[in-house]
Amino acid sequence: MPQIAPNHRIVFNKQIAHGFPVPGEHISLDKSQSIDLDGVPLNGGFLTKTLMLSPEPAMRERMRDPKIPSFTTTLVVGHTVVGFGLVVVLRSEKEGIKVGDHMYGMTPWEAYTVQPYIEGRVDYKLAEWPAGTFDMDSLALQVVPDPRGAFPWSNYCSILGIPGLSAFAGFEAYADAKEGETVYISSGASGVGSMVIQLAKMKGMKVIASAGSNEKVEYMKKLGADVAFNYKTSLVADILRENGPLDLYWDNVGGSHLAAAIDALTVSGRIIMCGVAEEYNVAHEDRYPVKNTSLIFKKRLRVQGFLIADHAQTMVPRFFSEIPALVAQGKLLSQEHLIQGIENAPNAFVDMLKGGFPVGKPIIVVAQE
Amino acid sequence: MPQIAPNHRIVFNKQIAHGFPVPGEHISLDKSQSIDLDGVPLNGGFLTKTLMLSPEPAMRERMRDPKIPSFTTTLVVGHTVVGFGLVVVLRSEKEGIKVGDHMYGMTPWEAYTVQPYIEGRVDYKLAEWPAGTFDMDSLALQVVPDPRGAFPWSNYCSILGIPGLSAFAGFEAYADAKEGETVYISSGASGVGSMVIQLAKMKGMKVIASAGSNEKVEYMKKLGADVAFNYKTSLVADILRENGPLDLYWDNVGGSHLAAAIDALTVSGRIIMCGVAEEYNVAHEDRYPVKNTSLIFKKRLRVQGFLIADHAQTMVPRFFSEIPALVAQGKLLSQEHLIQGIENAPNAFVDMLKGGFPVGKPIIVVAQE
Repeated sequence: MPQIAPNHRIVFNKQIAHGFPVPGEHISLDKSQSIDLDGVPLNGGFLTKTLMLSPEPAMRERMRDPKIPSFTTTLVVGHTVVGFGLVVVLRSEKEGIKVGDHMYGMTPWEAYTVQPYIEGRVDYKLAEWPAGTFDMDSLALQVVPDPRGAFPWSNYCSILGIPGLSAFAGFEAYADAKEGETVYISSGASGVGSMVIQLAKMKGMKVIASAGSNEKVEYMKKLGADVAFNYKTSLVADILRENGPLDLYWDNVGGSHLAAAIDALTVSGRIIMCGVAEEYNVAHEDRYPVKNTSLIFKKRLRVQGFLIADHAQTMVPRFFSEIPALVAQGKLLSQEHLIQGIENAPNAFVDMLKGGFPVGKPIIVVAQE
Repeated sequence: MPQIAPNHRIVFNKQIAHGFPVPGEHISLDKSQSIDLDGVPLNGGFLTKTLMLSPEPAMRERMRDPKIPSFTTTLVVGHTVVGFGLVVVLRSEKEGIKVGDHMYGMTPWEAYTVQPYIEGRVDYKLAEWPAGTFDMDSLALQVVPDPRGAFPWSNYCSILGIPGLSAFAGFEAYADAKEGETVYISSGASGVGSMVIQLAKMKGMKVIASAGSNEKVEYMKKLGADVAFNYKTSLVADILRENGPLDLYWDNVGGSHLAAAIDALTVSGRIIMCGVAEEYNVAHEDRYPVKNTSLIFKKRLRVQGFLIADHAQTMVPRFFSEIPALVAQGKLLSQEHLIQGIENAPNAFVDMLKGGFPVGKPIIVVAQE
């Protein structure tokens, strides 16, 4: 008897013109699929069971009209959503990949997948995309070591995944951090921001960090932030004026936070732009009008846009040689907010974009081991 | 009989809140002074006769309220305007400075001066200015070699002065220019811009350049620009879209040109901000609202503010070992627009800010040898 299992998945139905994706309209749960776990042909590949899915802001950018240039290829309408996830191998015909291996990387948002996935994969022809567009499907699943209880598996989707790696690589490449300097980190309770707070403190910096709830403010203090504030109840400009000037601004938000930081930076200050949470879901005409760009000249600032894809080759080996040990020793903290069930993935993705979750990197738990 | 000469000067009367300076209100000619050229005590210094004065955009920034932080100290209200000039030494008690020496650097805008100047000099106490504020008075007069007819003395106020040096230093430090790349240069017929055009062509770049008159467009073509256009009659965005994408933007203007360049830059493109001609004379609320800063992140751009003061130590020796020979050989071109008479200095300064002159770096001729 074949072992037929339901294979629930999240489908990308429709490109988003402006604003946030709407569950049921742009992305939706599809319960119509099933899979024969014992019999499905692997064709030299391997079968994975999805344990966790990790919603990331970059996925919003993949849901745009592909005619709009951006840093990444788009998702394919009508196919399964692809994003970061943690999976376990059930069967394998591929050398180097064994049953029971855990893997982290890009995977279709569904319960089971024959890998490497075809459904949902962008037929990536470099020449058809603007130069520098990143093929997100190239962030293939990689085997990750069993932490044997030193930290939870979910850490691989937060501090030991793309958020932690992005923070580490951008900070190492561009921060020029010096002891006693002051840094402002927007979206400081996010996966990236919470790691940047800790890296900055390890360098002896004074850390100012913001987030959108009082609970997150407490979390940022626990991570070591010297000044933590709720940007919904305090004016960013006021806080930075009182606690600045800044030597460094780590930008996860863009727009109004960027403008306030430009005002507050000292001469020869640096800005690392790692995300634009305020602007992913906003039409051009509604974006915050930055009117102080002349200060970039007057203060001789350096503003550097950063995407992990450009640095993965050099930074991934360093990251995995340094960071997991610090996590295991409790010297770097990571907190995850677990949402149970793939059926909640569309809402979880939108809530992540809106910053509506309690403390912790949001992660969707699809199945137990 | 003492040789008493009139000593006409330009006085800084009043700080400018917003907009352009008004001759007669903020800066004005003062004909009340005279000087005893033979008898005036030198106190170990030297007496100079002003030959040429060189109005520069940075002088506008020195006319602000000193409470507004910026890259430079301010001028002193009620005293002589200080700016760049070319002078000749009439008498000297200072070792190393001989009668007949020509010198270029900061000098009071008056016919004759006992140097080093006291009148108009900012009493510069580092602690009283924001960190990184540059003491413009430190750009003291330096002896320049007699070109012996290889090029005109006026070149020392343009391609061999601060404009040429700024272009050279910024380009060497931050352009990362590669053969076959495309650069856009705003204010391409200015002292700085005309040098950047030529430096970029020497590196084998494709050059797009803009200015505010058709005559300047022809001049930029003569300097080697592949695409030269009048920004008053063509849309910057259109020209850049047709001739881009850009690898580099040299920004002398800021605001609308900066926003258009951000749109037109390729992934990993660079911006060097060397001036903000569009914004020196505009109140914050009236400035161009830049709404595409998120592209700095998405395209991983690097935006670098640049002020020559930060690089003078390293770049001045290289500049003077390389560039005068190229000018003498006719491999680098410089054109100056000469305005006769110090009485025209206030209007010339304002016309320079407004870009209202014909082709050539505007220079005020105060006296013949």
